[in-house]
Amino acid sequence: MPIRVTFYNEYLEERDWEAAKKVYPEGQHKIIGDYLAKNEDIEFTAVTMEMEDCGLTQELLDNTDVLLWWGHGYHGKVSDEAARRVQLRVLQGMGFIPLHSSHVSKPFRALMGTSGRLHWCEDQKEILWTVTPSHPIAKGVPEYFEFEDEMYGEPFDIPNPDEVIFIGWFNRGNVFRSGVTYRRGNGKIFYFQPGHNTNPVYYNPHILKIIENAIYWAKPDFEYVPRSDDFFPRDKIIKD
Amino acid sequence: MPIRVTFYNEYLEERDWEAAKKVYPEGQHKIIGDYLAKNEDIEFTAVTMEMEDCGLTQELLDNTDVLLWWGHGYHGKVSDEAARRVQLRVLQGMGFIPLHSSHVSKPFRALMGTSGRLHWCEDQKEILWTVTPSHPIAKGVPEYFEFEDEMYGEPFDIPNPDEVIFIGWFNRGNVFRSGVTYRRGNGKIFYFQPGHNTNPVYYNPHILKIIENAIYWAKPDFEYVPRSDDFFPRDKIIKD
Amino acid sequence: MPIRVTFYNEYLEERDWEAAKKVYPEGQHKIIGDYLAKNEDIEFTAVTMEMEDCGLTQELLDNTDVLLWWGHGYHGKVSDEAARRVQLRVLQGMGFIPLHSSHVSKPFRALMGTSGRLHWCEDQKEILWTVTPSHPIAKGVPEYFEFEDEMYGEPFDIPNPDEVIFIGWFNRGNVFRSGVTYRRGNGKIFYFQPGHNTNPVYYNPHILKIIENAIYWAKPDFEYVPRSDDFFPRDKIIKD
Amino acid sequence: MPIRVTFYNEYLEERDWEAAKKVYPEGQHKIIGDYLAKNEDIEFTAVTMEMEDCGLTQELLDNTDVLLWWGHGYHGKVSDEAARRVQLRVLQGMGFIPLHSSHVSKPFRALMGTSGRLHWCEDQKEILWTVTPSHPIAKGVPEYFEFEDEMYGEPFDIPNPDEVIFIGWFNRGNVFRSGVTYRRGNGKIFYFQPGHNTNPVYYNPHILKIIENAIYWAKPDFEYVPRSDDFFPRDKIIKD
Repeated sequence: MPIRVTFYNEYLEERDWEAAKKVYPEGQHKIIGDYLAKNEDIEFTAVTMEMEDCGLTQELLDNTDVLLWWGHGYHGKVSDEAARRVQLRVLQGMGFIPLHSSHVSKPFRALMGTSGRLHWCEDQKEILWTVTPSHPIAKGVPEYFEFEDEMYGEPFDIPNPDEVIFIGWFNRGNVFRSGVTYRRGNGKIFYFQPGHNTNPVYYNPHILKIIENAIYWAKPDFEYVPRSDDFFPRDKIIKD
Repeated sequence: MPIRVTFYNEYLEERDWEAAKKVYPEGQHKIIGDYLAKNEDIEFTAVTMEMEDCGLTQELLDNTDVLLWWGHGYHGKVSDEAARRVQLRVLQGMGFIPLHSSHVSKPFRALMGTSGRLHWCEDQKEILWTVTPSHPIAKGVPEYFEFEDEMYGEPFDIPNPDEVIFIGWFNRGNVFRSGVTYRRGNGKIFYFQPGHNTNPVYYNPHILKIIENAIYWAKPDFEYVPRSDDFFPRDKIIKD
Repeated sequence: MPIRVTFYNEYLEERDWEAAKKVYPEGQHKIIGDYLAKNEDIEFTAVTMEMEDCGLTQELLDNTDVLLWWGHGYHGKVSDEAARRVQLRVLQGMGFIPLHSSHVSKPFRALMGTSGRLHWCEDQKEILWTVTPSHPIAKGVPEYFEFEDEMYGEPFDIPNPDEVIFIGWFNRGNVFRSGVTYRRGNGKIFYFQPGHNTNPVYYNPHILKIIENAIYWAKPDFEYVPRSDDFFPRDKIIKD
Repeated sequence: MPIRVTFYNEYLEERDWEAAKKVYPEGQHKIIGDYLAKNEDIEFTAVTMEMEDCGLTQELLDNTDVLLWWGHGYHGKVSDEAARRVQLRVLQGMGFIPLHSSHVSKPFRALMGTSGRLHWCEDQKEILWTVTPSHPIAKGVPEYFEFEDEMYGEPFDIPNPDEVIFIGWFNRGNVFRSGVTYRRGNGKIFYFQPGHNTNPVYYNPHILKIIENAIYWAKPDFEYVPRSDDFFPRDKIIKD
């Protein structure tokens, strides 16, 4: 059974905004999708904001094991219903990997309960440090590596993570918990900071490897029986 | 400066439903409020569902340090706006203590990101065990004590708690993480399971002591400057 | 590559003490070993206290991916050196699964930093509840199941676990965090409470399944380069 | 009742090594002690390595609410017995604040179970970021501030902290979880990275404020009955 990966990409700025267009003319999903296509375990689908209801149909989500998410300037245009469908599928067991500016996407905020606020400013040199080197998401990733990216800085308004895998250093003085994990319901979440759309971060082999590792880590790894109600089954009671 | 405690109580079943009326004819807020009134550090206010917008005005929330919450059959009648105001005030720093069936209240679900689902059935003997005896919420509370209450059982669909203070035992075979803490934004949350409205649980001195301890623990203990935007201030960036 | 599992079993009481001998005449390691032998992924070795230095040589530990541990009445007879070797191998990445009364074994205490103290008394009916049903250790395990075992009760003096997978209920009124996980250094630890040696708990298929799941979960899942110093490599520094 | 604070300072290098002597001729305990002396809630005692058994008698520890610890080049000269006494008092409820190079002190390693290893190199500019601004240890502390200090870098071999309060940034490219909390037994622990003995870090008012805050946070806040056995009382069992 392949791991069914869906990538929701906003994919608007990359067509209209020269700085982003230059780096990702076919979208971040194209670059990441091409990389993942080499992996026979993975079956890749991309949807974008232009599709009806962002392409996030119940049917697609029901057939998704891990959902990657990239949004930036148009979080508000994702319908509340689509965001809710994503949240419920995560609680059922779908893995969820919000990338970069998806820290304030609707489904990530809904799953965290916090604002997702942080400091940010223009590009800097970032060094990404592996804080938990034995974690499967860090497999084959060097202790540190560097690239250019938009600065994201602490304090980051998220719940205390289950695990901090990576911490980012930015040359003008900021730090950031750049790779953090959560379990919510039956689903696993990995928020990963790198990837502003004016920087070729998703061409970096270490970044791609981390995303691939995270897909293996986040895929459902349990026996699940789908049901008709909102959340996963929880109604068995010990009766005499 | 007193600790400004507000108790939101649904207070409908206690007037209409004989089983609840018998135990709390003036509402759970009356019993808990009378107990807290003896504490000079605390200034107590109660609001109920019958008030306009449940009494949960922005002004009241802005002047609340710790919000107790008891709801049961009418969670859906709390407006989304009121629930959102509560969530934002918690992120700003207000303490939040959802009691018993408030595990599926709108603000608790919104702050957790999960369903809050659990198993439940009719009354059983419960024994409450103190798992973290040195926690300030457990101060002066015996290692265990027992009472009658509605059964709440695992699995309980909540994020991995920051701390588990109490675990409940139920005589027919269930267990439950009955007292758990979270930090969300600047706010502290203590979910506490005991207290179905047909059981005189809130007359129990140990239960009252735990609630009082939790108020001291949950009150804001930092320097906060209110601002006009949704969440607490996070926009300072290191500039050259 | 098989998963190299070593089981350290004290294996003294089971030969001298009638109550234990009756249940495990060839030791708990025989029962669990026979079960694991059916799994082609696993290569199983057993060592006992009677061997020189408990059989816990550096060479064996260096060739162990996951170490199961069962000790009871003779924790003090494990040498400090052997306990230290185990601790260091866990920090290097070896999985560690202390069972039942190993909560006060030397290596578990050394890895936790706490006393491991708990309440205990004679046999009761235990019901084991799955608190985190989507965890790989709970794969294929029912929501709850019951058996007879020695009572272990809270408060249990352990650090706040990374994850609580199972909570035990005991018929006379106790509760216990019966299955908890930790990461220490590169190693993963799963403490699992069931299994007094006068009860046939390790014949229970659900218990065996949990142990098997835990072996898969605890095995090292990273790229490790062994070195000559005490702990894993950590000496690379960014130099100009 | 005052908070009884004891500061164990190695205090050897500051007398023999010119670089340290210049900054702390009377020891770090003198600077921190002078600051704390202004606080009427605190009763301050200092002990040093030159005293018999480092001055860490059982009597002193029994009368200590919070123990500060600074050691660097002579960790091995603290006796195993003294380190053990400290560990047990922490499990009983004494607060423990290991500073800077005490990350590899005997009691901190014993309480963590890990190596405490990290990267380090010579002085750099450090910026300390407040990651959890509403935590009592961060009260009145700015969002960030800077100073010169020895570099300590990730990966830091510690258990996943209960809370990360501060993250440090170093100008040549490293990051570090510089302020982290743990609960072990009844005791609270705050590890705080700044303070190499050739840098006047403990003259910095923000650093002093953080240490003072941590003392309030770490002091025992529960009802404790001392007993004759190693650890805190845990032997009550529900009997029929």
